[in-house]
Amino acid sequence: MIKVGIVGGTGYTGIELIRLLCTHPNVEIQTITSRSEAGRPLSSLVPNFFAMSQLVFQEPTVEVLSQCDLVFFATPNGTAMKMTPHLLDAGVRVIDLAADFRIKDIATWEQWYGEPHACPDLVAEAVYGLPELNRNAIKQARLIANPGCYPTSVILGLLPLLKNDLVNVTHLIADTKSGVSGAGRGANIGTLHAEVSENFKAYGIAGHRHQPEINAILNTVSSAESVQLTFVPHLLPINRGIHATLYATAKESVENLTEIYREHYRSEPFVTVLDEGEHPETRSVRATNHCVLSVNRVSKDQIVVLSVIDNLVKGAAGQALQNMNLMYDLPETLGIEAIGLLP
Amino acid sequence: MIKVGIVGGTGYTGIELIRLLCTHPNVEIQTITSRSEAGRPLSSLVPNFFAMSQLVFQEPTVEVLSQCDLVFFATPNGTAMKMTPHLLDAGVRVIDLAADFRIKDIATWEQWYGEPHACPDLVAEAVYGLPELNRNAIKQARLIANPGCYPTSVILGLLPLLKNDLVNVTHLIADTKSGVSGAGRGANIGTLHAEVSENFKAYGIAGHRHQPEINAILNTVSSAESVQLTFVPHLLPINRGIHATLYATAKESVENLTEIYREHYRSEPFVTVLDEGEHPETRSVRATNHCVLSVNRVSKDQIVVLSVIDNLVKGAAGQALQNMNLMYDLPETLGIEAIGLLP
Amino acid sequence: MIKVGIVGGTGYTGIELIRLLCTHPNVEIQTITSRSEAGRPLSSLVPNFFAMSQLVFQEPTVEVLSQCDLVFFATPNGTAMKMTPHLLDAGVRVIDLAADFRIKDIATWEQWYGEPHACPDLVAEAVYGLPELNRNAIKQARLIANPGCYPTSVILGLLPLLKNDLVNVTHLIADTKSGVSGAGRGANIGTLHAEVSENFKAYGIAGHRHQPEINAILNTVSSAESVQLTFVPHLLPINRGIHATLYATAKESVENLTEIYREHYRSEPFVTVLDEGEHPETRSVRATNHCVLSVNRVSKDQIVVLSVIDNLVKGAAGQALQNMNLMYDLPETLGIEAIGLLP
Amino acid sequence: MIKVGIVGGTGYTGIELIRLLCTHPNVEIQTITSRSEAGRPLSSLVPNFFAMSQLVFQEPTVEVLSQCDLVFFATPNGTAMKMTPHLLDAGVRVIDLAADFRIKDIATWEQWYGEPHACPDLVAEAVYGLPELNRNAIKQARLIANPGCYPTSVILGLLPLLKNDLVNVTHLIADTKSGVSGAGRGANIGTLHAEVSENFKAYGIAGHRHQPEINAILNTVSSAESVQLTFVPHLLPINRGIHATLYATAKESVENLTEIYREHYRSEPFVTVLDEGEHPETRSVRATNHCVLSVNRVSKDQIVVLSVIDNLVKGAAGQALQNMNLMYDLPETLGIEAIGLLP
Repeated sequence: MIKVGIVGGTGYTGIELIRLLCTHPNVEIQTITSRSEAGRPLSSLVPNFFAMSQLVFQEPTVEVLSQCDLVFFATPNGTAMKMTPHLLDAGVRVIDLAADFRIKDIATWEQWYGEPHACPDLVAEAVYGLPELNRNAIKQARLIANPGCYPTSVILGLLPLLKNDLVNVTHLIADTKSGVSGAGRGANIGTLHAEVSENFKAYGIAGHRHQPEINAILNTVSSAESVQLTFVPHLLPINRGIHATLYATAKESVENLTEIYREHYRSEPFVTVLDEGEHPETRSVRATNHCVLSVNRVSKDQIVVLSVIDNLVKGAAGQALQNMNLMYDLPETLGIEAIGLLP
Repeated sequence: MIKVGIVGGTGYTGIELIRLLCTHPNVEIQTITSRSEAGRPLSSLVPNFFAMSQLVFQEPTVEVLSQCDLVFFATPNGTAMKMTPHLLDAGVRVIDLAADFRIKDIATWEQWYGEPHACPDLVAEAVYGLPELNRNAIKQARLIANPGCYPTSVILGLLPLLKNDLVNVTHLIADTKSGVSGAGRGANIGTLHAEVSENFKAYGIAGHRHQPEINAILNTVSSAESVQLTFVPHLLPINRGIHATLYATAKESVENLTEIYREHYRSEPFVTVLDEGEHPETRSVRATNHCVLSVNRVSKDQIVVLSVIDNLVKGAAGQALQNMNLMYDLPETLGIEAIGLLP
Repeated sequence: MIKVGIVGGTGYTGIELIRLLCTHPNVEIQTITSRSEAGRPLSSLVPNFFAMSQLVFQEPTVEVLSQCDLVFFATPNGTAMKMTPHLLDAGVRVIDLAADFRIKDIATWEQWYGEPHACPDLVAEAVYGLPELNRNAIKQARLIANPGCYPTSVILGLLPLLKNDLVNVTHLIADTKSGVSGAGRGANIGTLHAEVSENFKAYGIAGHRHQPEINAILNTVSSAESVQLTFVPHLLPINRGIHATLYATAKESVENLTEIYREHYRSEPFVTVLDEGEHPETRSVRATNHCVLSVNRVSKDQIVVLSVIDNLVKGAAGQALQNMNLMYDLPETLGIEAIGLLP
Repeated sequence: MIKVGIVGGTGYTGIELIRLLCTHPNVEIQTITSRSEAGRPLSSLVPNFFAMSQLVFQEPTVEVLSQCDLVFFATPNGTAMKMTPHLLDAGVRVIDLAADFRIKDIATWEQWYGEPHACPDLVAEAVYGLPELNRNAIKQARLIANPGCYPTSVILGLLPLLKNDLVNVTHLIADTKSGVSGAGRGANIGTLHAEVSENFKAYGIAGHRHQPEINAILNTVSSAESVQLTFVPHLLPINRGIHATLYATAKESVENLTEIYREHYRSEPFVTVLDEGEHPETRSVRATNHCVLSVNRVSKDQIVVLSVIDNLVKGAAGQALQNMNLMYDLPETLGIEAIGLLP
């Protein structure tokens, strides 16, 4: 049994992580921590866990967390980087679901996240935890930077195009739409029901933190010139789900895009490529770790990729478990085999 | 033209009030005030008003408000009672959309609202602004206590039964459901989209402030023994609308309940009684000042009344305008004739 | 392995049943059938099953179904009663998720379901599949009448009151609210998104089929006079979930209602009794087989019970699995241990 | 008073049209017609109209409709073209809210709408009813082709760019999202609440009828080479509203895009241009005839325009009234001055 700790188990990502870990056969939850809720039973904060009332939030101390084999951080940005050095020193492996270790370029990170980085050297060591890209490195890693939700949907959607050098990488467009759980569980007028429901809007048109993350990863993949991605996120009046609509211009007349995608993802357990002309739906992957794609040639040189994930699962907690499974040499799909609910 | 001021124009009720007043032909908005947003154009807070950018929030001072003929308070409970004495002294009439003047019994008020009342004498003078009950008094009033949203739906639903002494008043039940705008525009985890949507629950089972308000008003109507109402509110995952399902036991075999209701509300412009067996829908009255009812005998002695209103209109801002129209001897429906949107 | 067949796997109940059966460790799905979709892969109808593409709808014939150990009917009312006699004769056990075997009184059934019953004798044999009421009979049964969704929530909410003879049974009230999946997956204007969302209404005020079902079961429990239940269903703009708000008048001053409920449900794996004053939420049981209750004394003699279930799980497919587990002497919770998603 | 008739008043567009016409001061509704609902009072079909019960659906005959000055068709595609010649002959003016007269090229129309056109000559005469483009022609027109909802949002968003020849027109992208009322009020599994809510998907990736309409109009505007627009529509889980996210590549370094847009729309009563970096929201224009835009330079040559309308108002019924106002020399905003509801 892997003894795990979860730091920050009170947000939507943390709660989802606990939910998944509770039923994972090789995991024993050693501790869940929350500074604000220390002493409170999990089932009192989230009645959904009424059958598991033994879990109680503790103070997040290095001492407590050092008793774990693996610690997940489901905390706001800037938290994991403060505790991670101590945990690694104590022989604990770490998966950070926030952004502290995702961007290798420290100056870029500090510009977007607005504070000095606490351990730049560990950023260099951290592995970007997208199994479809870095599976082997993940297996050996002490420290995983779990990808952002938008980046997961966008990168998986564009990977086969860039790997095969099929498109003009200077004018990529990602028109992305996310359910509101992506904005977290904080008290906020902008995410009230009466503000979000029966409404739709873009946000972050002037710049969003996930854009440099996507750019940096795509640049490691593209053999061609520097990637330029236009990234426009929108807020969907749903709780879970991301839909990325991706636009790229083909370099020359490519045939058989769907076959290229299927070949690329042939052995991936969590990526499904639909036929051209089919429309992935966010609900098909709700509460699952899947990414579903279709790739479409809509005119001579215009390619449109449709990509969906559940932002809390493949975009966060589920992918973290997938990484854990790899790190501990378990079957990659263990504990994350759920079939999406309908409706 | 009536010169009006609105204190507290940043919540859902205040915004709805401004929206309605903007198109009322006999009204000139003299000032909108907000302590927190003073200096900010209304259209910057609520883009819906982009065509009316001249309105700018001011500090709510007695000086500014004394230049009005009529001041509406769309503020949290406990605010209106502090300014109202000064405004009345200055010859300004007042309509309070909060609860400061709704309950005549000061001890009861102080118990439920948790602070000493600032002007108990004015409570005695204030008229409970339900036109279907107090039309004549409203016309003469200097100070109106605009009814709560739940009380409006429940009282209109029960009035003909109690006036005609048809039911046992010691076991009335109001199972009520309200859209989330009733909880206001404050930042609050409990009213986030991801908490409210795809969810339904009761709240306030241990006691809700609208229950003593309803009880007090029903007791003024009932010629029989003291009214005992069980009141269970529920939170609906919609933005606007209240549905009250009301249960009462008939004293004896009453016939023609629908006719009794129609007779009672014969000259009311804003109350419609459907045929028995029909189901009022909240959307039918969305953004309108109407209350739609049906009254049903479901067994020998069991009566079920279904009653719907828009909590922000007939349950708040629209009823306030109806009261204003009465106070200024205008046609009662002026400015509040809207037909409900579908969908 | 239990070889199961599912007749009518294209509605929400049937799809939910397949989803649950797919991951049940002791089940092998022998066949899924649909007259209208015969020949079509399940994953083409419901992309959520893209990882299980081997299942293909077949014609529902006695021949095909006779190869199963157990057949579930997730069909419209009136279908199961036509095939069940042949299947039982062939030694196949049957769980009907529709209403064909729920009401013992044939005349009542025929009045509410509008056709002659095809096998009245089997109605007598059928066991009403509410494990909390009939666990032992279920274990031996050849034929299970799986309870309706409303009846499950209402009966579980009232059972301890009636068993202990604590309330006046002639004036019970069930104000119930159901998510829209309860209305099925048929093309219907009344359940369009633009009709249901941002709306709330009662329906069936003149009479609903679940009322005689509830009455009949409660009468088997009540030692007192004949049960009279007022039943008012409402349509909630959510997909899954039932909330029953139950009103009963205490016979005399009863103390410790919560303890009575907890004692009653002490060994039930799927019923949780919250503290008095707490509010069960439909989302806490979403996609789970749980019923969560609280029982509240709101005045001297007025009791209010709040009861929630997921209409597709404890109200349909999950309860069917619970019954199956009992029939095959498996752990009662096997395959239905899910923790509710948040959000 | 203009005597108007509405053919097809039972869908969402027709109902919205009646709602707006009911309160227009210069209009008298002469007849509303529906083949399927002839004889039925409007208020029985749509209870929202309970205060206007005099309107009753009639059979749509040329005889009845010839008594009108103006007839609106809110019918399925292919209906208006059959009656329009007779009405024009009778001296009646016509506004078709469907697509029968929108595309000048008959072959293209017949390809997308799948039937021979009944009156190709009238297509040539018809004026495309986008006032911001064709105001003068509309004033004189006998026959108006009211624009599609998507085309309205896309064309208004791109017009200033194309008129001023600022962008490369061969790679325009319109990523559009529409509320579900755009799919009409027919009974359809795909638009059920349980299918649409908590879900998001693209549709029509292989081709959508609004694309040739947009292309044709944009080509009349663009002085440059032939317009090539990639058009990807998505289904939003809201009732009303369209959000178009438009991508265009600047020809050279253009400055002051927002000023160019503001200058272009300076005298338009229904188009508002926000500051760069602001995000139009669909709810800001809900139930209004406004289009709200922002235009953003997100990199050296990448322009992103955000454009919102209410699909049933500016995208259908409201624009039809705007056209009527122009045709009858009334103030252009008469009867369509509503301020958007919040929430």
